[in-house]
Parts: sequence; structure tokens; C-alpha cells
Amino acid sequence: MSESRRAGRQARTAERSRRGSGVGRPYILRNIPTYDVLSEENLARIETAADRILAETGIEFRDDPVALDHWRRAGARVDGLRVRFEPGMLREVLASAPPVFTQHARNPANSVQVGGRSVVFAPAYGSPFVMDLDRGRRFGTIEDFRNFIRLAQSSPNLHHSGGTICEPTDVPVNKRHLDMVLAHIELSDRPFMGSVTAEERSEDSIEMARILFGAGFVDQNCVILGNVNVNSPLVWDGTMTRSLRAYARANQAAVIVPFILGGAMGPVTSAGAIAQAHAETMAGCALTQLERKGAPVIYGNFLSSMSLRSGAPTFGTPEPAIGSMVVGQLARRANLPLRCSGNFTTSKLPDAQAMTEGTMSMLAAIHCGANFILHSAGFLDGLLSMSYEKFMLDADLCGALHSYLDGVKVDDDQLAVDAFAEVGPGNHFFGASHTMAHYETAFWDSSLADNEPFEKWEAAGSVDAASRANRAWKKALAEYEAPALDEGVREELRDFVARRKAAEDDRWY
Amino acid sequence: MSESRRAGRQARTAERSRRGSGVGRPYILRNIPTYDVLSEENLARIETAADRILAETGIEFRDDPVALDHWRRAGARVDGLRVRFEPGMLREVLASAPPVFTQHARNPANSVQVGGRSVVFAPAYGSPFVMDLDRGRRFGTIEDFRNFIRLAQSSPNLHHSGGTICEPTDVPVNKRHLDMVLAHIELSDRPFMGSVTAEERSEDSIEMARILFGAGFVDQNCVILGNVNVNSPLVWDGTMTRSLRAYARANQAAVIVPFILGGAMGPVTSAGAIAQAHAETMAGCALTQLERKGAPVIYGNFLSSMSLRSGAPTFGTPEPAIGSMVVGQLARRANLPLRCSGNFTTSKLPDAQAMTEGTMSMLAAIHCGANFILHSAGFLDGLLSMSYEKFMLDADLCGALHSYLDGVKVDDDQLAVDAFAEVGPGNHFFGASHTMAHYETAFWDSSLADNEPFEKWEAAGSVDAASRANRAWKKALAEYEAPALDEGVREELRDFVARRKAAEDDRWY
Repeated sequence: MSESRRAGRQARTAERSRRGSGVGRPYILRNIPTYDVLSEENLARIETAADRILAETGIEFRDDPVALDHWRRAGARVDGLRVRFEPGMLREVLASAPPVFTQHARNPANSVQVGGRSVVFAPAYGSPFVMDLDRGRRFGTIEDFRNFIRLAQSSPNLHHSGGTICEPTDVPVNKRHLDMVLAHIELSDRPFMGSVTAEERSEDSIEMARILFGAGFVDQNCVILGNVNVNSPLVWDGTMTRSLRAYARANQAAVIVPFILGGAMGPVTSAGAIAQAHAETMAGCALTQLERKGAPVIYGNFLSSMSLRSGAPTFGTPEPAIGSMVVGQLARRANLPLRCSGNFTTSKLPDAQAMTEGTMSMLAAIHCGANFILHSAGFLDGLLSMSYEKFMLDADLCGALHSYLDGVKVDDDQLAVDAFAEVGPGNHFFGASHTMAHYETAFWDSSLADNEPFEKWEAAGSVDAASRANRAWKKALAEYEAPALDEGVREELRDFVARRKAAEDDRWY
Repeated sequence: MSESRRAGRQARTAERSRRGSGVGRPYILRNIPTYDVLSEENLARIETAADRILAETGIEFRDDPVALDHWRRAGARVDGLRVRFEPGMLREVLASAPPVFTQHARNPANSVQVGGRSVVFAPAYGSPFVMDLDRGRRFGTIEDFRNFIRLAQSSPNLHHSGGTICEPTDVPVNKRHLDMVLAHIELSDRPFMGSVTAEERSEDSIEMARILFGAGFVDQNCVILGNVNVNSPLVWDGTMTRSLRAYARANQAAVIVPFILGGAMGPVTSAGAIAQAHAETMAGCALTQLERKGAPVIYGNFLSSMSLRSGAPTFGTPEPAIGSMVVGQLARRANLPLRCSGNFTTSKLPDAQAMTEGTMSMLAAIHCGANFILHSAGFLDGLLSMSYEKFMLDADLCGALHSYLDGVKVDDDQLAVDAFAEVGPGNHFFGASHTMAHYETAFWDSSLADNEPFEKWEAAGSVDAASRANRAWKKALAEYEAPALDEGVREELRDFVARRKAAEDDRWY
């Protein structure tokens, strides 16, 4: 390690300890229970409704004969593209899926546990646009993409590098995955996600992970995730199932996510949308096990609502938030790791609306027991834009959530009974020995919130939170330092990318 | 009822139903469980720590010999001003306090239940300053005070008129309570709070309630609340205990609230601060029962933290939020109605920081089971300012929380199983009969959030949430209509105020 890198690491460690004990861990092990809102009886009713959907209406699997073969062999009823499942069949197939697994990072200190009590924060995923206060909204580029990786890597509050943080629209559609995976590997030493937009792009992503980690290691360990979406209602497209199978085949984890806007791709009532999502997710998760028994897989969910006035999708609203708690309970009954919710908003600015909706949505993910929280930072504009400022605001909230998930520790030292005898009625605790011993780690300290008195804040220019976030991302990018990477590995990866790019014409659609 | 008033009421009813089924109720009966984070064992440890504080260090009761007499007769050890309590004694005294009571409003349709599954939203309380985007920060006046009552009364998302919504600093200190209570009665037909800043002001407040409701009714029913604060750590000032006793004596409800900034008025560790608050609250609550057995009383709490960098108080931070869950559990074990948390922030603007902190703090109140949520709307600036815009943003969040607290209903209709057979894989639910039947009430619809596509939002002027809130409060004030009040009662109240004002010289401190 070079002198400057060592100094940088020490500075970061100091930075972390300055902000209290909460942050700087590779992932969180929650010390508070999940928030369970439904009775066992009502959960069973939802499962029964899902079973009925699966048995009576079934799910269509398009453009993937291998998937249909898998289902046939597993005993499902296949009628054309339509697959129907006997109640209980998917749960049986899913018995082989691990409830907890480790996703390895190239820096082993950054490997994350997915499942059980773990909580992993990853940036938002998939926006075609990016925004900042200086330049407004524009199409995302590969440089924006790289910038967000740098910001995530610099944040002590996030754990994961994410995947398609924004669409690098200046790179041909059929070659983006190569540049994206390369950027994750070169600019971050945290775990990351690969592409899923075509089976061969999934395989390319995994192949690059093999170059980084070694093929033998990859065959036995999860090092890359792929996020696949159901074409709700009740359709799995071949592009997605082929990608899902590519990840499973390589023993890598697919994240299985129905995307239901209530009233459009599913019922307008929460219980129905949850039952549908459960059916769709369980089918996708089970398919990974038919491709490779024991492959890691994540039970995903994305509930949403819509505006009754305009029919526009809405995010960070109360119904999906409380619905997430039910989804969490169902995932735990299925004994699978959970991805749920995230930080969502339809606001077009990093303003009050953005953080009301974002905080409600993010806390739902925290309370429902989500293990892998994709979309932890950056979204504005109804998922269509990654905002530089919102990224910083959200990452700051992620920092707060470390302390929140630590819960309230109860022991003699924390109860401080002796301190009351020392201080006595009417006196202050500032100088008490108990206060001195705990002062520096007692509270999480936001780096973006302004807690100063009004007069001091006004004298400093009356700066709002969005403008502070604007300064913060610029500072973070200016101070960013790439983690070291073996030069042989780097060269091999770059060769692979160059070779794969040369093999195809550019495609822009 | 006049024609125009009837039309106004019909318009309001239509407005409520347009926004979904959530809002417009006099109060909420929660349909989701509380979020319990600590084990019984750890709760018992906190209670034991509180018992030790009460028995060993005790609490000082200043300037109130009657309170000391009460304690002596109840069997506490009184040593000068210091009172010490045997473990279990306060719980025994509190056995007579009602776990649930009704606070009556002058419009019976607006009476609220306090305790059990109820959730009541009241505006923020006690700021010396007010703010709006046009005029910035300034001292509050009686006209500001009246405006906030009008805004609360106009909101279908709030339930209670509150108390000292802002300090009317243009009215002498010793006469403010008269104008404030009169304003609550004249401008709102919802329940309200009286003054507590001196025993005679508490009695004036209650006397005005007697004029409104009749003395006999008031003696048997709760019609006014008084919010009293502990002078933490472990001191009860005579001003507060005399007011507390005045409310209890009249069979009215005192809200008993320790105010602990961790590290200043209590230990810097949450468990210790919670144990202290429990001790202080239990003592105050018990004192009401010694004044009048069976008087309603609310177990209150106000946890906070501080910035490790500046020592400034911080609000809406994770430690008090998760700590509130423990406070909720303790209040339920004490079998008392709970007031906890609220919508807090140190931000000086209705910006992203304000709503991150405010939403985290408010959701803590929701999850911990608070029955009476004072400070539901309006605070900025570390409790020092009431913001017109923040009030509207917060009230909008209160609307969302109606739907949130309704939870997820599970029955055949909500599960929509037949709809899947109707719609089938790959089709949309827009025109499905199930969607049609539920469309209008399925989702809460914010009146402040902008869910439009970016282009439409941009074409409409790229307005942020704070500016929309600015328009909204002006519109609400312009459209406000005072609820009818019996002219005889109005005259009697005004006479009382005039007489009481004439009896004293103005005091400005």
C-alpha cells in the first residue's frame, strides 16, 4: 500500500469514528426486530390466494423453452406457454435455496452477508436520466455512471456498488454492460451487480467476475448479483428468465422482482397486489433452483401506487410502505433473503417532497426486514433520474439508519444509574463521567444536516440542504481515490472488454 | 346552518372523499400493531433502573407545598424538597388513572379518544417565532396564532386544534392565555389545549372551557388538555405542578412531559435517558391522581440528541426515533395513554433536511403507539419557529399516515383472486371490474406532492414542494370559514376575557 493510500485510509477511518459508532461497517446486522403487521392467519390467506393464482391462472413463460422444460420435469402443468403449479410445489422446490449467503467483494473486508439479520445498502438502479442542481436533467453518460460509483465507494454509509446506477446512454446498448462492470471493478472494491438485459450480457458480466475472482472461486461463491424483473401481471419474459438462469447456472444470485403499479399491472388493492407479487416471485426464485440446486437467490418486491387524479405512478406513498411489512413477513415464511422497497419519490427536485416520500419508503425497507436494499440512494423523478444531490442526502439517511438499526442497548453502563447519583436533580450531565465516557460515540452525526442556531445559519448564507448536498458531491468526487487493483487483472479485464466490443456492431436500441 | 355554511361543509366532505378513504375522521383507530423493539426482560431492567432513580436519588418538587403534602400522605419519603419513592409505589397510585378517555370537542363529531388504539394529530406547540417563504423569520403574533388555528381547522388531516401553536408575542405574557383559548374556541370546533404557564392561567383556561361546555359537564368529562414539562433532570417546578394539579382538580387531562436532551438534561445513552424520563413522567402522572383520583392523564415523552460537533440539540435523529419505541412499550406497561415524539427538525427551511428529520421523527410516533401526537405539524428551526409552509407539508404527511395506520386489509375482495382470472397474464388491470370498484378509494392522494411527468412539471414552472405549500396555506386561509358558535357563549367568553384582562397590569416577561 502506498503512503498516500495509507494516509487516505487513515483519514477515512478517522472520519468514520468522528461520525459515531454507526457507520463504516461492511454491512449492518440489525439489532431490532422486524415490524410484523399481519397475523399468521392473514399471512396464510395471502399465501393461499397466491397458490390459487399459481394453480388456476398460472404464469406465462415466453421465449424460453428451457424454462418450460424445467417446469415440466419438476411436475408443473405446462400448457403452451402457460405454466400452472400445484399448491406447495414452489415452496418444495425452494427448499434448496440458501436463506443466507455471502456476496464476496474483491476487498474481502467489504464482503456482505445477504439474509438473516443483514441489511445491505446499494445505490439506485436503472435511471435513463441524471440530474444535478447546476445542469438540471440530462441523459446519463458513462462518466455519470462512473461518478456515482465513486460517490458510493467514498460513502461510509453505503455497502454495495450497485449495478446500472444510471444508463450510460452514450455507450451502445449492446456494449454498456462491459463498461459498467469494468467501472464497478476498477473504481470500487465493494460488491456489485452485473447486467441482465440479454443472456449473453449476463454471461459477459459473470465472465468478468471470473477474471477478477478466479473461475473456481466463482463456481463456489456468490460474487455478482443480477436483478431480473417480472413482466407483471403473471408473465416472465425469456430475456429475464434466460438471464436469471445464467446467474443461477454460475451459482450467482438473481434478485427476482415483480414490478406492480397497483391498478395497472396488478389489483388496486394491496392484499391482491401482494398475493400476485408473491406468486410471481416464488415462481422466479424456484426457477433458479431448477437451473442449479442451491444457487443463491433473493426474494424481491416492488409495490407501488398511483395518483387517483392523473393515473400517474406514485412512490413513497403509505400503501406500498405498509404493504412492504407484509411482503417481509412472506419472504421470511419462504425462508429467503429479501429485497424490498428502497428510497423512492416522484419529486423532480431534492426537496421536501423528495425526502418525505424517500424517508417513508426507505424506513419501510428497514422495518420490513429487507436484507438487500437496492435503490438506497439517488432516485428522483419517479425512478427516471439519478440525482447527484439526492444521492448525498440519501446516503446521509443511510448513515442515520445504521444507528437506528442498532436499536437501544440495555445494560448497566447504558442505563447510567450511577450517573444520577453523581449529577443529582437540577444539575446538568455535560461534565459527568458517564457523559465523558460516551460522548464521542453516543449519537450519529449527520454530515449534511445543519443543526446550528438560526442566526449562525443565516450568517453563513442561509444554505438549504440541497445546496449543501451539491457541495458535498463535488467535494467527494474531488477527493475520491480509486482502490488499488492488480494490474494483471486490470489488463485481462480490459482485453476482455475490447475483444467483446470488437465482436459486435454497435446497437443503439 | 346557513346556506353558505352548508355548501362549505358539502365541499369539504367532497374534498375528503376525493382524497381517498383515509382522511376526514375525527381521529384514527390504528389497524396495525405497535412496533415493539425490546424484550420484556429489557423493559423490566429499564423499569428497575427508574425505580432505583426514584428510590435512591429521588425527585425535587420546588415551590409547591401541596405537592409535598400529597406525597407525604401517599407514603413517599419527603426530605426537604426531595421526594423518594419505594419501588412500585407510583404504579400503585396510577392504578386509578384511565387507560383511555375522550376529550370532548364543542362539535361532538370532532371529539377524540385518547388511549388504546387511538391516534390524534395536533399542531406543534410553543415556538416564539414564525416563518414563511415571503417574510422569513419573525416573532409570532396573535394573528399568526389565529392563522394556524384556521389552517388546522381547515385540514382534513389533523384532529385537534392544539394549544400554544406559536407564542403571540404581541400580547402581554400574563394575558396571552385568554386570547389563545378564545381563539381556539371561536375559530375551531375541534378539541384544544389550555395554558399552563401559571396556576391562575390554567384555571382561567379551564374556566373558559366551563363557559363553553357547562361546569357540570366539565367536572365529569375531559374537554381541555394542559401540557406540563419536567425541569429535567429530576426536578418538578412549582409552576408546573400547580398547573398539573389545577387540571387534575378540574378532572381535565395533564400531559406529563420530560424534556431531555441527552448529555445535557440526562445521560447521553438512550437507555439511561429513557429510564430517567420514565421516572419523571410516572411521578408527574401519579401526582394528578393524588390531586384527584381518576383524573385523565397522558404519559408524555420527549427524547432528543445533540450534535457531537457543536453540542447543539438535534431532532429527527435515529437514536430518539428508535428510543421512542421503547417509551411506547413502557407507557403501555404503565397502562396510560401516550404522547411521544412528533415532527421535529433543526432545519431552518422547509427543505430536504426538514422532511427527512420530520418524517423519521413522525413515523417514530406512529410506530411507538403514541395516542396524542402533539407537534404533528409546523415545526422548523429546532422547535423555535412555526413555519406556514412546513405546517402544510406536515399536515399532508398526516393525511398519508391515515392510510398507513389502516394497514393491509385481508379479505376475499381485497385479495382480488377472481380479478386474475378475469385479466389473465400480460394484460392490464385498468378496466377490470375489481379496479373500477376500488379505484376511487384505493390510494391516499397527496394534495401537495407533484406526481406529474418531468416535462409537464417543468412546463408548469418547475415549482418545488415548499412553494406549493406556500400557495396552499394562502388558499386555505382565503377559503377558511369559522364554525358557528352560540352568540350567548361567545359573549360570555369575551366578557370573561375582558374582565380578566382588566384585572391585571400588562406583564411582558
